[in-house]
Amino acid sequence: MTAHSTATPDLKHLAQETREAARQLAILTTDKRNQALEAIAQALETAAPDILAANAEDCRVAEVEGLAKPLYGRLKLNESKLQGVITGVRDLVRLPDPVGEVQIHRELDTDLVMKRITCPLGVLGVIFESRPDALVQIATLAIKSGNGVILKGGREAVRSCEALTRAIHTALEQVGISPAVVRLLTTREETLALLQLEHEVDLIIPRGSNVFVRFVQQNTTIPVLGHADGICHLYVDEAADVQKAIALTLDAKTSYPSACNTIETLLVHEAIALTLLPQLAEVLQTHAVELRGDAPTQTLLAQHGMTIQQATEEDWKTEYSDLILSIKQVTAMEAAIAHINTYGSRHTDAIVTENDQTALDFMNRVDAAGVFHNCSTRFADGFRYGFGAEVGISTQKMPPRGPVGLEGLVTYKYWVAGDGAISASYTGPNARPFTHSDLK
Amino acid sequence: MTAHSTATPDLKHLAQETREAARQLAILTTDKRNQALEAIAQALETAAPDILAANAEDCRVAEVEGLAKPLYGRLKLNESKLQGVITGVRDLVRLPDPVGEVQIHRELDTDLVMKRITCPLGVLGVIFESRPDALVQIATLAIKSGNGVILKGGREAVRSCEALTRAIHTALEQVGISPAVVRLLTTREETLALLQLEHEVDLIIPRGSNVFVRFVQQNTTIPVLGHADGICHLYVDEAADVQKAIALTLDAKTSYPSACNTIETLLVHEAIALTLLPQLAEVLQTHAVELRGDAPTQTLLAQHGMTIQQATEEDWKTEYSDLILSIKQVTAMEAAIAHINTYGSRHTDAIVTENDQTALDFMNRVDAAGVFHNCSTRFADGFRYGFGAEVGISTQKMPPRGPVGLEGLVTYKYWVAGDGAISASYTGPNARPFTHSDLK
Repeated sequence: MTAHSTATPDLKHLAQETREAARQLAILTTDKRNQALEAIAQALETAAPDILAANAEDCRVAEVEGLAKPLYGRLKLNESKLQGVITGVRDLVRLPDPVGEVQIHRELDTDLVMKRITCPLGVLGVIFESRPDALVQIATLAIKSGNGVILKGGREAVRSCEALTRAIHTALEQVGISPAVVRLLTTREETLALLQLEHEVDLIIPRGSNVFVRFVQQNTTIPVLGHADGICHLYVDEAADVQKAIALTLDAKTSYPSACNTIETLLVHEAIALTLLPQLAEVLQTHAVELRGDAPTQTLLAQHGMTIQQATEEDWKTEYSDLILSIKQVTAMEAAIAHINTYGSRHTDAIVTENDQTALDFMNRVDAAGVFHNCSTRFADGFRYGFGAEVGISTQKMPPRGPVGLEGLVTYKYWVAGDGAISASYTGPNARPFTHSDLK
Repeated sequence: MTAHSTATPDLKHLAQETREAARQLAILTTDKRNQALEAIAQALETAAPDILAANAEDCRVAEVEGLAKPLYGRLKLNESKLQGVITGVRDLVRLPDPVGEVQIHRELDTDLVMKRITCPLGVLGVIFESRPDALVQIATLAIKSGNGVILKGGREAVRSCEALTRAIHTALEQVGISPAVVRLLTTREETLALLQLEHEVDLIIPRGSNVFVRFVQQNTTIPVLGHADGICHLYVDEAADVQKAIALTLDAKTSYPSACNTIETLLVHEAIALTLLPQLAEVLQTHAVELRGDAPTQTLLAQHGMTIQQATEEDWKTEYSDLILSIKQVTAMEAAIAHINTYGSRHTDAIVTENDQTALDFMNRVDAAGVFHNCSTRFADGFRYGFGAEVGISTQKMPPRGPVGLEGLVTYKYWVAGDGAISASYTGPNARPFTHSDLK
């Protein structure tokens, strides 16, 4: 599938060790896995001075090398940020175990019972940039869900990542779990090799820019959990409450412009445009939002003394990740839905309307992981949905999609137990019937 | 990703029509979709003479061209086979609707409610060989689950497929559903083009040989539901009941040798080998099963006057799809599990033992979609599990895995409804807490 060289034998061997260690981890009790998490929290507390020193050195080098400011911000750890990470580990202990859940329990016939039970996926491959706190978050999510994990951090965070991994390994050894469960890679070449370990790695989780996620998706046959784009829309219906529309637009655009659940395009029913847009444009400009509009919007705002740039076809396809908003007027909800289903990235799209029937129709017909009514797209988030821990957000259509909690890190097995049952008894002229009755 | 030419504009256009028609289908009620299925059943009854005539012509050409016998058998329709297909459509009407199921219903806060609701995937691309009955089965599964479907049948069945599609289109028009929901492709070139429609097709379902499924997996970025291999094992533990072991081996090997849930390798604990193997070998040879064994098995059977071929490394990796069984002795269950996790295809593996603790340990540690105790691997099947209709069997690790029912053809959306809720209220020093209470 890819043109790259095959995985180096060394990495393959290391990954096989992680797979074997993960198999041991998978059969531990919930208590034992939680005990490992608590040991990790303690080890991180003990190692805090070493971790912060390693991070300080990473930051010093980053400054010398002129690392971009947002990356530097994500790289930098301090005592309170580290304490937040440790609290996160302890929060994870309290979450329900995603492993061992009985999803189906069915009698197929007398003395023939089927159960569908959740189990770990196996080995996760996680590639992230800068943020050393992501290492701890992902490693502990993996352990909670009974999976091994091969982590590849950014080069700029190598000392921090190594210090964090040392603490995690110390904790795992203390509780009698093989440290091979959590493996850290540090070179760029290993990233490519990791993407080719289709027999050793069950799921790749890339955490980084859209371009990076797309690169990963295109260079591996291993399933990828991630989203490459977040082009979200807010549609203001003719029956919208104007004040709600203004508040929601402001929140969905400005509360965190680089987040994937931030809106890029505002669609406005023409019947409400004259009432809404002049007020809204004023509020947005106060918040330093650059507006781009289709011709009717340009004309309308010009009549109110506001000159805005023309929105082009390119704008409808762009995730600005910045304080820019494109605006388009539509003659009916039909056109708004068609626009969203054409240009959206199936992430999250919202409608503002006081008409519940219109809202229902919009939510039914928009093709996205999140369809929202009278609330901000910014709520599309695992923590806000109450999933406790977020593994990532997926814009693929097959489940798991949208914000993914621990359930994204488990799969299931069918357990069938009989007393010598053979299939031949259920075929032919004297075939036994199945009873197929669900048990509880 | 692939080296093939891009999809022809014509096919892309047709696929967009199917996507649009599928969007209309997706918002129909359960009753309306069931009504379409009933109309299809009737239209097939009415068109039966045309369908059988078209099929007779396909069969005549196939005979002239010397189509392989098993393919010919799958191609041939007769009145009773067609009646079986029609009954299958009516059975589907009675199955619960997979669309619209509320999986999560949660208050996030006062006036902010989240629901996770199942919805259709969109458009399925299905590629199948020979069997015209598969066309009806897949088209009606798609309609039941609110999806559009682009079907590519085998060249040898082209007249049958066209006659069946005509009947389906007539029925859809009768109930006011766009016939574009079900689209038939007939040329080989279109198969490759179909695999590239990543914006128009949401799931590819290949039905055919292992080689074909692997080809599809390697030539598309669209998710694929299918299994390339079925290397299943039966492990006979030292605490096995010998008569059960013999009956289960016979059933799991001979009841349908070309099925994917048939065993290829028998693993035998050495402590039971002397008691089991001579009897078992005799029974299997009576059923024309060719045996291949590791050295200890060869020696043991030679002492009982039976000469069998040596099993090589290649045998452990081979899905015979034929009356051949490889046998290996192991010194402990540990070795049996290691063998399965190395050579198995994660399809279905079984243990025969009277020791429940051993069985539990085996089922926990074998890495497969199906882990069975004292029953035949042949039960790994959607109908036998009570799923009503089987979409396919998946050997991938991410859900859906194993036999997949209608649930494999749906995904879900998160519906969030508020009364103007903005995310800013939930951040900062005066952040509102979420209530996160599940509703019923």
